[in-house]
Amino acid sequence: MESKLDQILKDYKEGLLSLEEAVHQIENRQSIDMGFANIDLQRKRRRGTSEVIYGASKTPDQIIMIARKLIEHGQTPVLITRLSADAAAVISQNLDLQYDEMARIGIIGEMPKPNGIGKIAVVTAGTSDMPVAEEAVKTLEFLGNEVERFYDVGVAGIHRLLAKLDKIRSAQVIIAIAGMEGALASVMAGLTDVPVIAVPTSVGYGAAFEGVTALLAMINSCATGISVVNIDNGFGAAYIASKINHQEVKS
Amino acid sequence: MESKLDQILKDYKEGLLSLEEAVHQIENRQSIDMGFANIDLQRKRRRGTSEVIYGASKTPDQIIMIARKLIEHGQTPVLITRLSADAAAVISQNLDLQYDEMARIGIIGEMPKPNGIGKIAVVTAGTSDMPVAEEAVKTLEFLGNEVERFYDVGVAGIHRLLAKLDKIRSAQVIIAIAGMEGALASVMAGLTDVPVIAVPTSVGYGAAFEGVTALLAMINSCATGISVVNIDNGFGAAYIASKINHQEVKS
Amino acid sequence: MESKLDQILKDYKEGLLSLEEAVHQIENRQSIDMGFANIDLQRKRRRGTSEVIYGASKTPDQIIMIARKLIEHGQTPVLITRLSADAAAVISQNLDLQYDEMARIGIIGEMPKPNGIGKIAVVTAGTSDMPVAEEAVKTLEFLGNEVERFYDVGVAGIHRLLAKLDKIRSAQVIIAIAGMEGALASVMAGLTDVPVIAVPTSVGYGAAFEGVTALLAMINSCATGISVVNIDNGFGAAYIASKINHQEVKS
Amino acid sequence: MESKLDQILKDYKEGLLSLEEAVHQIENRQSIDMGFANIDLQRKRRRGTSEVIYGASKTPDQIIMIARKLIEHGQTPVLITRLSADAAAVISQNLDLQYDEMARIGIIGEMPKPNGIGKIAVVTAGTSDMPVAEEAVKTLEFLGNEVERFYDVGVAGIHRLLAKLDKIRSAQVIIAIAGMEGALASVMAGLTDVPVIAVPTSVGYGAAFEGVTALLAMINSCATGISVVNIDNGFGAAYIASKINHQEVKS
Amino acid sequence: MESKLDQILKDYKEGLLSLEEAVHQIENRQSIDMGFANIDLQRKRRRGTSEVIYGASKTPDQIIMIARKLIEHGQTPVLITRLSADAAAVISQNLDLQYDEMARIGIIGEMPKPNGIGKIAVVTAGTSDMPVAEEAVKTLEFLGNEVERFYDVGVAGIHRLLAKLDKIRSAQVIIAIAGMEGALASVMAGLTDVPVIAVPTSVGYGAAFEGVTALLAMINSCATGISVVNIDNGFGAAYIASKINHQEVKS
Amino acid sequence: MESKLDQILKDYKEGLLSLEEAVHQIENRQSIDMGFANIDLQRKRRRGTSEVIYGASKTPDQIIMIARKLIEHGQTPVLITRLSADAAAVISQNLDLQYDEMARIGIIGEMPKPNGIGKIAVVTAGTSDMPVAEEAVKTLEFLGNEVERFYDVGVAGIHRLLAKLDKIRSAQVIIAIAGMEGALASVMAGLTDVPVIAVPTSVGYGAAFEGVTALLAMINSCATGISVVNIDNGFGAAYIASKINHQEVKS
Amino acid sequence: MESKLDQILKDYKEGLLSLEEAVHQIENRQSIDMGFANIDLQRKRRRGTSEVIYGASKTPDQIIMIARKLIEHGQTPVLITRLSADAAAVISQNLDLQYDEMARIGIIGEMPKPNGIGKIAVVTAGTSDMPVAEEAVKTLEFLGNEVERFYDVGVAGIHRLLAKLDKIRSAQVIIAIAGMEGALASVMAGLTDVPVIAVPTSVGYGAAFEGVTALLAMINSCATGISVVNIDNGFGAAYIASKINHQEVKS
Amino acid sequence: MESKLDQILKDYKEGLLSLEEAVHQIENRQSIDMGFANIDLQRKRRRGTSEVIYGASKTPDQIIMIARKLIEHGQTPVLITRLSADAAAVISQNLDLQYDEMARIGIIGEMPKPNGIGKIAVVTAGTSDMPVAEEAVKTLEFLGNEVERFYDVGVAGIHRLLAKLDKIRSAQVIIAIAGMEGALASVMAGLTDVPVIAVPTSVGYGAAFEGVTALLAMINSCATGISVVNIDNGFGAAYIASKINHQEVKS
Repeated sequence: MESKLDQILKDYKEGLLSLEEAVHQIENRQSIDMGFANIDLQRKRRRGTSEVIYGASKTPDQIIMIARKLIEHGQTPVLITRLSADAAAVISQNLDLQYDEMARIGIIGEMPKPNGIGKIAVVTAGTSDMPVAEEAVKTLEFLGNEVERFYDVGVAGIHRLLAKLDKIRSAQVIIAIAGMEGALASVMAGLTDVPVIAVPTSVGYGAAFEGVTALLAMINSCATGISVVNIDNGFGAAYIASKINHQEVKS
Repeated sequence: MESKLDQILKDYKEGLLSLEEAVHQIENRQSIDMGFANIDLQRKRRRGTSEVIYGASKTPDQIIMIARKLIEHGQTPVLITRLSADAAAVISQNLDLQYDEMARIGIIGEMPKPNGIGKIAVVTAGTSDMPVAEEAVKTLEFLGNEVERFYDVGVAGIHRLLAKLDKIRSAQVIIAIAGMEGALASVMAGLTDVPVIAVPTSVGYGAAFEGVTALLAMINSCATGISVVNIDNGFGAAYIASKINHQEVKS
Repeated sequence: MESKLDQILKDYKEGLLSLEEAVHQIENRQSIDMGFANIDLQRKRRRGTSEVIYGASKTPDQIIMIARKLIEHGQTPVLITRLSADAAAVISQNLDLQYDEMARIGIIGEMPKPNGIGKIAVVTAGTSDMPVAEEAVKTLEFLGNEVERFYDVGVAGIHRLLAKLDKIRSAQVIIAIAGMEGALASVMAGLTDVPVIAVPTSVGYGAAFEGVTALLAMINSCATGISVVNIDNGFGAAYIASKINHQEVKS
Repeated sequence: MESKLDQILKDYKEGLLSLEEAVHQIENRQSIDMGFANIDLQRKRRRGTSEVIYGASKTPDQIIMIARKLIEHGQTPVLITRLSADAAAVISQNLDLQYDEMARIGIIGEMPKPNGIGKIAVVTAGTSDMPVAEEAVKTLEFLGNEVERFYDVGVAGIHRLLAKLDKIRSAQVIIAIAGMEGALASVMAGLTDVPVIAVPTSVGYGAAFEGVTALLAMINSCATGISVVNIDNGFGAAYIASKINHQEVKS
Repeated sequence: MESKLDQILKDYKEGLLSLEEAVHQIENRQSIDMGFANIDLQRKRRRGTSEVIYGASKTPDQIIMIARKLIEHGQTPVLITRLSADAAAVISQNLDLQYDEMARIGIIGEMPKPNGIGKIAVVTAGTSDMPVAEEAVKTLEFLGNEVERFYDVGVAGIHRLLAKLDKIRSAQVIIAIAGMEGALASVMAGLTDVPVIAVPTSVGYGAAFEGVTALLAMINSCATGISVVNIDNGFGAAYIASKINHQEVKS
Repeated sequence: MESKLDQILKDYKEGLLSLEEAVHQIENRQSIDMGFANIDLQRKRRRGTSEVIYGASKTPDQIIMIARKLIEHGQTPVLITRLSADAAAVISQNLDLQYDEMARIGIIGEMPKPNGIGKIAVVTAGTSDMPVAEEAVKTLEFLGNEVERFYDVGVAGIHRLLAKLDKIRSAQVIIAIAGMEGALASVMAGLTDVPVIAVPTSVGYGAAFEGVTALLAMINSCATGISVVNIDNGFGAAYIASKINHQEVKS
Repeated sequence: MESKLDQILKDYKEGLLSLEEAVHQIENRQSIDMGFANIDLQRKRRRGTSEVIYGASKTPDQIIMIARKLIEHGQTPVLITRLSADAAAVISQNLDLQYDEMARIGIIGEMPKPNGIGKIAVVTAGTSDMPVAEEAVKTLEFLGNEVERFYDVGVAGIHRLLAKLDKIRSAQVIIAIAGMEGALASVMAGLTDVPVIAVPTSVGYGAAFEGVTALLAMINSCATGISVVNIDNGFGAAYIASKINHQEVKS
Repeated sequence: MESKLDQILKDYKEGLLSLEEAVHQIENRQSIDMGFANIDLQRKRRRGTSEVIYGASKTPDQIIMIARKLIEHGQTPVLITRLSADAAAVISQNLDLQYDEMARIGIIGEMPKPNGIGKIAVVTAGTSDMPVAEEAVKTLEFLGNEVERFYDVGVAGIHRLLAKLDKIRSAQVIIAIAGMEGALASVMAGLTDVPVIAVPTSVGYGAAFEGVTALLAMINSCATGISVVNIDNGFGAAYIASKINHQEVKS
């Protein structure tokens, strides 16, 4: 990452900036404060993608205002996660939103072409894990990845998983999504040699504790090569998986 | 089970017992009160095996006194669980004790010949689960079962389990023992059609929570045909497995 | 279980299958991938019963599609658990569904005749545990078992339980269902010599923690011969109880 | 309780006390501040018994100093709970201490004659619960109660309990002490009509969680007439039981 | 309690009962099995009050049927707890029900005159604890107790409590009801010499955990003479308090 | 605080009060008992502000009655927290209420001018934390503080926070509000030298556990100068922050 | 706080620093990297006190090396917390260490004169809370505060607390330290008008959960003006209390 | 991965293997059963590295036997994790072991040259996190990675981290290791664009809960690009980080 600090210091030395201006620019160069939100305009440059809007606890109006500001500064496409169908309907009246109800994701602007190293496999234990899986899939596509889905291949009928194994092994990263006891992640890592990002889901009842059991199980996997994100966090798993799939040689 | 109540009532009617004696016999017929312990002498008749001594929080002296009382009433062999090596050494000076240090089990008297329906498979995920497994094995043998061991076949290298599958499937009951994320139990039940008794173990660290994660995972198994006992409770798993392996036609 | 692998290998050797076909058949012989669900068609042969549809998080349309596929492949009767009355109404318009609202279970096709070793006793602590008990009863009947119900016989009035004891003792397996402190399971196991499958229920309030207290109590039972399934998991208890009641001599 | 406030106010009005003295006496009349401890000299008058020394985290020297101050002010006998054998040995060199190792209780001075309404039954599920039971027994005796012990009568062999039932029913209060799943408390309350004070113990392993499971089970008892104290708190159970057994007509 | 067993045995000896009849009567003398409920008709004799109907998870129809059966056998008045306003409305169309909405309690039949030793004080920390307090009050009245209410006297303004102290001290038992940190119970016990039954309530938010924090705090009280019932369990507290207030000399 | 006790004692000595009156005044001088509520009229004098009405579990009628009593005794302005929009609408028909829906706060009477030592900074990690922040802001204003808001400056884009640092450092106290992992509080304390009052919020999902994770993280901050209030407790944070900002020299 | 950034920028503009040097100084001006530790030399200037050494998991050698580096840079006195007696003995052979065993605190160099606004009151519920209290006291003195101790004044004998109330009220801040149910904090805040920093301690047993119950209780206090630090964190409480007692007018 | 199945099938068809031999080879080709351990000889081929010996619960003898078997089959170097100094001493007498006490890791055989894409940064919040960090470092080196250490740069003094930022950013993967509130991971991910593998450590006390708080905080990070492994699991973090750093283009 080239340092903006150099540039400001040079401008200042050359007299293009006063001391006060230099101090101010050093401290304030990266965000817009909207009062209720502080939009990060450097994230695309700094983190590789533009800021994502977490829709869960924002009003449609807040989302529209943030989205417009991002569009205005060229930070597109815009990804909105955890977006309810109702909020999506309101936003659609104001912006050109593509909404996926199962994934609870809205997208404004054109999706990029896949530009990663290879494919990412999204694997689920059951049909009920699909909303989380689709959140991951949409996020992966937004971040420029090719995705292959392998749904409902949990360990209750492990031959279903074995039958798909060769295809799964051809991915750069595996996102393993499961609720209940979350054994899929361990089995997945035991059978492959690529990084496995495990996503516990809130599928289950009773002592599944809304995904806590699956989370704990995945964190304690006896197999190696697994790391874990929050319960139902398809977005977060996609984000780190995409980073791996876009790995560049540093330094 | 034939009712002792009938007998007492008959004796009473025939005048062999007074009213007070009948009441007393009805209420007091089954145990000996030693002050610190109340020995159940009917358990062998009522439950199928004689009372087992839980050694964990008893002094060697208490264990010796209870064991002698059981022997005196013909309740042999005697099984002592959770017996420390130190306590075993003391007891050995007084009674003819066979002690298995890994299983922490002591036995007084002759073990029975296997008399169950078939074999019981004791399967562990790792080498570290062996103390729990051996507690189960010794208890199973005490209860008259033939046992086959399958150790260190956890899902981190699932082919090890698959290689043994045919043999495991030939058991009447499977005892699946695992710590960490406990995925072995689910995989085991997914691959077989016999009852699986799952035993979580305290093997692991961090968020394994001394076996709680494995317990929760096993309780939430997505596979069917599993039920679960307490953490490290090899004894308890053996007990119910033996009941199944000795199933008789009732009524 | 006769191995399908033998057959494929023989066919291959005899030239009925090419190498590619043999590899493919070995890997893919057991399921149909519907995209959102991967139906296990070998489960009936491999596990003893056809796949059960867990209705909780599936749409009526998904359930209908899966059920039709099962019927098409002769995997009947079909059992659907955790089925809401609303979903059942939709499905009934498309398939010949028998729905039990208390048990939240739907069945398509003819129930089998009881073909187990003996009876299974389903015992509850209170009236409030009935939905879980009925889920167990319907599942047991689906799996070919004769069932006897003993409801509302909890330890607050233990004589109610004692009054039924002889009948309960004539079962091959006891399913003990209780919420709150779940003491029924311990008392049940203390008084009988058959396997007790304990089901904690979410009945209770406050520190009952939606069934967690009952689960923990049952897992820690001081009586022997108990194993435990998930909170409110009448289905799971029935499944393992049925396996015991259909025990065959292996090997 | 007659109010000391009246007396001070009268003395003050009559000029026996200055304003400052009156304020001081009103605020300071009840304790001695030793820097590390603030000894309550009114507790015997106010609460019915003198202050008890909780020995667990005090040095032998601190205990000796507090005990001497209590003796000096006539607050005897002195009860010291959770006293280790080592600390007791040190204290015995300075004061005339009677020490009960199982109960971990030390007493200085003469025990009172029983002066309660009737007897108190102390009932345990197992032999391992005895230290807690003996803490209760010694405390009860210190508080002037007659005690009857019923040990090792847990629900794994419920007939042992039934055999003692008539005697237990003749107590004014029952202290029910159990670890593991703590079912004894519910069964006890279901079978009697006197108040049951339940004491969970840390006996057990795995998901017994050092007594938490027993605590939760007892708190959720389906039987009525139970209330619960802290894990292993034999002292606390004895204290409230004694209050009930010494009930006076108020107002 | 006089034993019914004596009577049956005498009748049998005198030929008034056959052996089968005697066995049957011994085992079946105490309840009516309605299929969904097993009504305990001996509880009034055995436990001192007739069976209480826990309304929370029963249908209005079930409640009506049980209530009628109790009335038919002279087990009145009938107390129904945790009764919703909707269910009460349905029941009122069939039975002469008095319903208290705040307490969620319905009563059929005439309430008894107070016949206890003295009064019981019901004390709450805040206004929000009133539903639990009123559940206790109604239950206490049903059980024949005189009650005095002291509401909203929590420790945030401890002088409010001190101002009422003399009156509170004139009760035989104190029921201390509080949510949040539940400090009222400790303060109450520190200031009085009668038994304190503590009821944690689900009042509070965040880390109050629906009453768990108050429960834990009460269980750990540094003051003596406290025991605790389940969260929001006004009924249970009333029940044991009433037993204390009706204490009879046993044996 | 000058002691009222002195005054009463003087009046009594001078004969202006009888003994009974003096006792009564000492004990009863500070509250009005409305049956369901016990209003503290001395709190303004004793604690520095008048009693605040916690609206969460009170009916609009109860709130109106309490508010009127406070107004009647000159305890204004009146602050009502956790007030729903529905309850506010009812109250507005009876009293001159200013209602802030985001903060869920209602105020009756005129707000005071700021009279603290300096300003208080209210800082949030995200837009979703605003309701808690606004509860803090309104409470701070009610208590006479000048407030500056810094919203949506969480550590996911830490430069946003750094850009505002100089302004934040000019506050007397910082209220740091964050959900999820609550890292804002640690970073805030690491970068400033004023007291930080941390407020965990229930923002987040999955293993955020409704704010528990943020609470634990804040309690364990590796930075110094932080203390923590309950989840979502903007009111409580404001209260202690205001005390600091109004610090007077004592003694 | 004057900004070092200004200075570096000025030096750079005047040619005293090259561009590379300016960048380097901006980024590296504040710490010394010792490999195993990164010593913050600006903390005294930035945070008001020099860095404190957390001794718990460091070897005596590491502590000596860090202390020497701090002394070398004039960052004295040096405070070492959680220092075991054994480690202190080793350090004393190398540095002039004053060690307080109860507080587990070591100090090198001369303690400052009190320079705060007023006094700080350190209040404990029991004698067992003293180690935590003394950690707070020593830290307070290190930070330039006058301290007054009030030990063993918990709510089990609330008059002990009331007797000291006037003196406690004359402090600028109260540190309230208690284990078990932690009610002292609520009572303390209910009776005073200064900020209360609550410290839960690990004193207690059973469901005290090593201080968790006290922590939760304090976080849920019904009284206002309390905030809470970690269990046994006397140091942290002292730190924020000292900040309050040294409050300066900002901006 | 080339399939061994093809080879066996070909051999069988060509008559080099009988049917029984083919079935046997298909099922048994990958491990050696030593009774107490089942050594996976295909892991190096299948997973990319040879099997690692988890030393925590194995006896030195077991470790020696397993290590010898691995060496015999050319599976070197051998990595032994969680190896105590005592066990290492025993093993050293039999095998040529290099032991690192801080990392608790033993290595037999020559370490490979780094052959990854770039460097991996291992970053810790404090000095106390070093054992976990060194476990990661040694594992990374064993797996062929170049490592750079950044220790003691936690958020309590965030400038220490900022000063190292450019160097940290030049890594392919960051392993962020922290105890207490674990904020380092969020800050790290907020400031960089490479994958962050977060390792919670058991450093801390009180409500740090042996690393659970850090684990929860990391799982809930508001920053993106983080995934998490078990508490103190430096090995597991290294393993997945190495996979990323050795990423190959698949399919």
